[in-house]
Amino acid sequence: MAGEAAPAQGRLLLAAALVSDAQYNRNIPFETSPGAVRLYYLYNHWVMQATTYFFIFLNLSLVLFEEPAVYPLPFLATSLIEVLCLLVFSVRLMHFAKVTPRNVFWKDTKNICVMVAILMSLTDLAIFGALRIYNVRSVRWSRIVRPIFLINFAESRQIRRAFRSIRNTFPEITYVFLLFMFSVLMFSLMALKLFGERNLQTAEGLPYFTNYLEIVFDLYVLVTTANSPDVMMPAFDFSWWYALFFITYVIINTYIFMSVFLAVVYNNYRKHLKNEIRKLAYMKRRKMVEAFNLLKEEEGAEFVVREAQWKQLVKLVAPDISNSHRELLLHISDDEQKGFIDKKSFVRLADLLNIQVITLKIRRHPLGRWMPRVYSSAASQFLRSMVRHRGFVWTYDVIILINAIFIALDEESPYISYAEWVFLALYIIEILLKVYTYEPRTFFGKNQFWNWFDTLIIFAALTATILNTTLKSTTEYNSQQILDIVFILRVLRLIRIVDSIQRFRVIMNTLINIVPTMLTFGGLTLVVYYVFAIIGMELFQGKIQFFPANSNAPHALECGNPALKDSMFARGKYCKNNFNNFASSFIVLLELTVVNQCGFAKVTVQAAKLYFIAFHIVMVIIIVNIFVSFILEAFFVEYSLEKSEVETAIEQKIQELGMGIQEDELQDEKLIDNMESAEHDLEGEGGTKPQPKGLVFKIASKRYRTVDALLQRMFEAELPPEDEGPSFEEILNLSPADAVQRNVTFEAAA
Amino acid sequence: MAGEAAPAQGRLLLAAALVSDAQYNRNIPFETSPGAVRLYYLYNHWVMQATTYFFIFLNLSLVLFEEPAVYPLPFLATSLIEVLCLLVFSVRLMHFAKVTPRNVFWKDTKNICVMVAILMSLTDLAIFGALRIYNVRSVRWSRIVRPIFLINFAESRQIRRAFRSIRNTFPEITYVFLLFMFSVLMFSLMALKLFGERNLQTAEGLPYFTNYLEIVFDLYVLVTTANSPDVMMPAFDFSWWYALFFITYVIINTYIFMSVFLAVVYNNYRKHLKNEIRKLAYMKRRKMVEAFNLLKEEEGAEFVVREAQWKQLVKLVAPDISNSHRELLLHISDDEQKGFIDKKSFVRLADLLNIQVITLKIRRHPLGRWMPRVYSSAASQFLRSMVRHRGFVWTYDVIILINAIFIALDEESPYISYAEWVFLALYIIEILLKVYTYEPRTFFGKNQFWNWFDTLIIFAALTATILNTTLKSTTEYNSQQILDIVFILRVLRLIRIVDSIQRFRVIMNTLINIVPTMLTFGGLTLVVYYVFAIIGMELFQGKIQFFPANSNAPHALECGNPALKDSMFARGKYCKNNFNNFASSFIVLLELTVVNQCGFAKVTVQAAKLYFIAFHIVMVIIIVNIFVSFILEAFFVEYSLEKSEVETAIEQKIQELGMGIQEDELQDEKLIDNMESAEHDLEGEGGTKPQPKGLVFKIASKRYRTVDALLQRMFEAELPPEDEGPSFEEILNLSPADAVQRNVTFEAAA
Repeated sequence: MAGEAAPAQGRLLLAAALVSDAQYNRNIPFETSPGAVRLYYLYNHWVMQATTYFFIFLNLSLVLFEEPAVYPLPFLATSLIEVLCLLVFSVRLMHFAKVTPRNVFWKDTKNICVMVAILMSLTDLAIFGALRIYNVRSVRWSRIVRPIFLINFAESRQIRRAFRSIRNTFPEITYVFLLFMFSVLMFSLMALKLFGERNLQTAEGLPYFTNYLEIVFDLYVLVTTANSPDVMMPAFDFSWWYALFFITYVIINTYIFMSVFLAVVYNNYRKHLKNEIRKLAYMKRRKMVEAFNLLKEEEGAEFVVREAQWKQLVKLVAPDISNSHRELLLHISDDEQKGFIDKKSFVRLADLLNIQVITLKIRRHPLGRWMPRVYSSAASQFLRSMVRHRGFVWTYDVIILINAIFIALDEESPYISYAEWVFLALYIIEILLKVYTYEPRTFFGKNQFWNWFDTLIIFAALTATILNTTLKSTTEYNSQQILDIVFILRVLRLIRIVDSIQRFRVIMNTLINIVPTMLTFGGLTLVVYYVFAIIGMELFQGKIQFFPANSNAPHALECGNPALKDSMFARGKYCKNNFNNFASSFIVLLELTVVNQCGFAKVTVQAAKLYFIAFHIVMVIIIVNIFVSFILEAFFVEYSLEKSEVETAIEQKIQELGMGIQEDELQDEKLIDNMESAEHDLEGEGGTKPQPKGLVFKIASKRYRTVDALLQRMFEAELPPEDEGPSFEEILNLSPADAVQRNVTFEAAA
Repeated sequence: MAGEAAPAQGRLLLAAALVSDAQYNRNIPFETSPGAVRLYYLYNHWVMQATTYFFIFLNLSLVLFEEPAVYPLPFLATSLIEVLCLLVFSVRLMHFAKVTPRNVFWKDTKNICVMVAILMSLTDLAIFGALRIYNVRSVRWSRIVRPIFLINFAESRQIRRAFRSIRNTFPEITYVFLLFMFSVLMFSLMALKLFGERNLQTAEGLPYFTNYLEIVFDLYVLVTTANSPDVMMPAFDFSWWYALFFITYVIINTYIFMSVFLAVVYNNYRKHLKNEIRKLAYMKRRKMVEAFNLLKEEEGAEFVVREAQWKQLVKLVAPDISNSHRELLLHISDDEQKGFIDKKSFVRLADLLNIQVITLKIRRHPLGRWMPRVYSSAASQFLRSMVRHRGFVWTYDVIILINAIFIALDEESPYISYAEWVFLALYIIEILLKVYTYEPRTFFGKNQFWNWFDTLIIFAALTATILNTTLKSTTEYNSQQILDIVFILRVLRLIRIVDSIQRFRVIMNTLINIVPTMLTFGGLTLVVYYVFAIIGMELFQGKIQFFPANSNAPHALECGNPALKDSMFARGKYCKNNFNNFASSFIVLLELTVVNQCGFAKVTVQAAKLYFIAFHIVMVIIIVNIFVSFILEAFFVEYSLEKSEVETAIEQKIQELGMGIQEDELQDEKLIDNMESAEHDLEGEGGTKPQPKGLVFKIASKRYRTVDALLQRMFEAELPPEDEGPSFEEILNLSPADAVQRNVTFEAAA
């Protein structure tokens, strides 16, 4: 091992790299040489990561400027930018190769993927450019590989994990899907036999259920409920007994099969996620043991890490935590204050560092320090106790309700327009009063979501309103964009009323908790939409055109396509739902996600139906179900899981230490209680009672948990804490089947 | 206690009543006097129960014959039938009062409910009849109480449980719903401000988003995805940035909130179901202990039940099980063959009786017995080995596929019509060959679902085809109904191909398993639909009329309502979606369940919107979510749960005993393996190898499990087997909160 021969400082640096690697569960193997550590830190520096992301999104957004463009740019400009992006990706990849052992680097499919994608993009660009010179129009097919950069750069682990989860779910879902398709085909055959020879007509006057493939498509769409009850009406008009056919179909295929899809996706999602988390947890433990071995010294019968070494290590790994926080961690790791840390406690360090501990300084209000006499005068005290009173919250709830009524009323009357200023003033006064009463740094603490939310909304509204008024009075130009923003901000303000009701606040907090993870699904959706939008643009571009209402272009009413004459599509004024540029395609895909609108397929080419079905399978059956699974899982975790073990250990220690520093135990506990809610006094009784100056720690609220933390919390509780797990090689080769009991597969359940 | 003084025979009878009561988990209290036991048996006799159900459904179906009727009957006839039904219900209730202690009877809300419902129905009938004589038309409001009889008669425990579960879910879902409505109101306010003053128009030419309440309704409907993307198009046509508003709305309200509803419903459903099951399990144990106390005799230091007593008891409780089955149960209960049964084993009797054990006689083929020479001739043996060959199954799979193609082809050609006869003949030959090869009683065993299915389908198809041909040739009349049935049966035949593929068979089995429980949801849905259909008929009857295509009635194109001129509703030919009679209302409600079609509300009265929203909340947000929860739960159970403990005990015993009886152990095990699949030889190696005559037991496949058994299997594993549970009084007063840990409520999770 490379670390054995390194000098003390090098060993420490290496251990620090291992610990910080384990702490964030990055996928870098742990056998790096001390020389590579600095390069590794550089690679993981946030500036480098941000730059990579910037170029990834720049590369993705090129589609907006390339033909067919939303904002056209010359081909030369877009291709130069693309080459620049590819260059950046290559450099980043080479950097990664430097910090990774050669064999690991070349074994990793994601690196190969990125290289292939870069080569493909360059080739395509060259071919397209060359053909362009001779005025031959070819397809920019390489654009669909662009999301590969988003997926495969090391920072996007969440999205990669989601993709892996999808890939793993595939076999099992395929069987259910085949059964489902079999059912659709059977029902279509029945429908053909039952309705095909009745000479029925659809509402558009077309023959009803005469072509087998069209029946299959119509019934598939019925599963998405998009054409219910249209598809049923002709048969139902003929005889209401035929409604039974559609009832049976909907029960079996929409309700039962769609639920089975959810069940299969959910079950697989959990199973594979568990496996991934287990892999990561084992890897973390291995790395921590590795780091321990680098730093260990003999102490009696066992190997330990000395306190000084440990402190240096923590300083290197987490340079931004406070001294007192580090002392707290030391107290937890070295429980009996022996001056050294044993292996078991050391291994827990990565977990401890992952828990956000907020160091709260009990401090007097700055005004109380600067002008104590004024601040503690009777008037000031009365004001502050008034703000602390429940009536204050109620008063502002009533004000918000009145504001809601004013917003709903018409804007025309000048009085209402003045009222808006009054409300803005009232809200600003509220914030000022609160800052006056509570300590400002506590009021704007990291976990005071609603305080931040209020303040931002109010000041944004103030700025926008002032800007709008100025523009209005000086240039006679009433900017619609700014006015829209003002409206939205005005309405958003009303959300505050939710926070006043305890029951709602709890549900809101759970929802806010899962926002970061939902961003993963945003990334996933972006990738799928991107690929489908590019394909859709190449296939359907220009088939449908949108004309403004007063246009007199030929076929303006039929979306520029004579085939659409008298169709429901044109009558429903859906012309803007087209694939003519990336933005439109994106929105069409969104509509397809909500309801698989088939009108479009009917009027373009028959092959379009395959496109629509493929999109439905990928997006609705798989991704939306994973999304729903995640929300279900998150709520179940919230419902059932108690704080994880490590968290509880820290909290206990905080309580113990709090006693040591604070003396006044009851006071302290009350303080910590008070801190849970933003509305309460954070400074004891406002300086009236004697308060010892000191520190108070507090576990950060669950709100700001990272994606990983939430996922780990879901499953880590099930891992025995002593288990160091299998060897590194074994971990990497863990199959999902190993992670679960024998009885969870379908075959065993039968 | 009444039993203490009763003679031995009375005690036995009482114990038997307790055991059979515990076995089926009926809700009858256990302190009945021996005299009441016979009355109690009579009450629970299947003829009595069937009669009650018949009158319940007769009473419910009256709505088809009353004004507005599908099949009109005179008022006198329907009211006489109703009085008859009410009379039957009263008698049934009185019978129940006889077998129940007075204080328990009057404490039970369901009895009070039934009494009030009977009184209300009679009063309403009297008032309506009286007013009718003076030609005053009044509302038959009491019809909405009719489902009460379905819910509250003791046999419908499943539906009652589902209703209780809904009622318990209500408080928690209300908070989420309020938050959801708050979000809808906020978005509506934003929409009003953003789009209200743009003078936009919908596709129908109406002003777009100008009235606040209409926006709220439109956006609520958008949650059901019914009016997507219509509701977005005018704003999207104006500027595509506005699509962002709808995207945000759909993500928050359709995806997130709907998933949260599912999570809350699912979580509560599980929690309350668990509590109910726990209550029932405790009650069962109490009753068994009670029965034990009646029969116990002293034996050494402990009290036991003698083998003779036990056998008499089992004979009384389960008169239809075979002697060998009873011996098996005795072997399990009296493990060491001491001649008596101790308390612990006795208490398990109810569980043992609930497990379906199939007694399989190893018997030779009847043909083998009647004409052994022919049956064991070389030709016969060759035939049988051919049928057993995999190729036989494959051949028939190919035949089915060819059949599918023929079905899809046109019927006109006479050759294809002849081919149908060929296929029918082939299928019949297949069944005959299989019966020839396998033992007929085993082939048509209770758990051979697919064999039954095949045979029924084929013979129904044969009958229908012959009937159709006869009718065609004799009367020149080609009955459409029979032809439709022939078509459906012909297509259903194709399902068999699914059974040939192992993977599909497993999924199908899980689906078939949950069919019985889905019937509960059928009952639940029936009740909700019934109430809403009655209300809808009273409110909206006659607002919309359906005219056949070639009608020349005024406003035939506008569904008889001038207000519908040029509306999407009339253009889409939805006129048959009306509330003019019960059948139509029922189908409209079904359409509303799938997609909340708002076109109807637009054209009738504004208040109709409330009706639609109420239906959506009850049906989609609550009942459909419970349905989805059930399917999810059932699949998770299938995925994860191993056979329950008691089942395993029986199976072990079967193995042990099997050895005792069978001698040839390996042979036996192979036999049991073979029996798992229907296609395999059930008779060893077809009589070629010497086979000892004997019995083989087998746990019935999971397929025919009852609803209760599945639910109990879900949760009973979590109850400690020794725990006798709290006292009877305590059980009845168990609150859901007691059944779960403190940390599952929302407050604690925050």
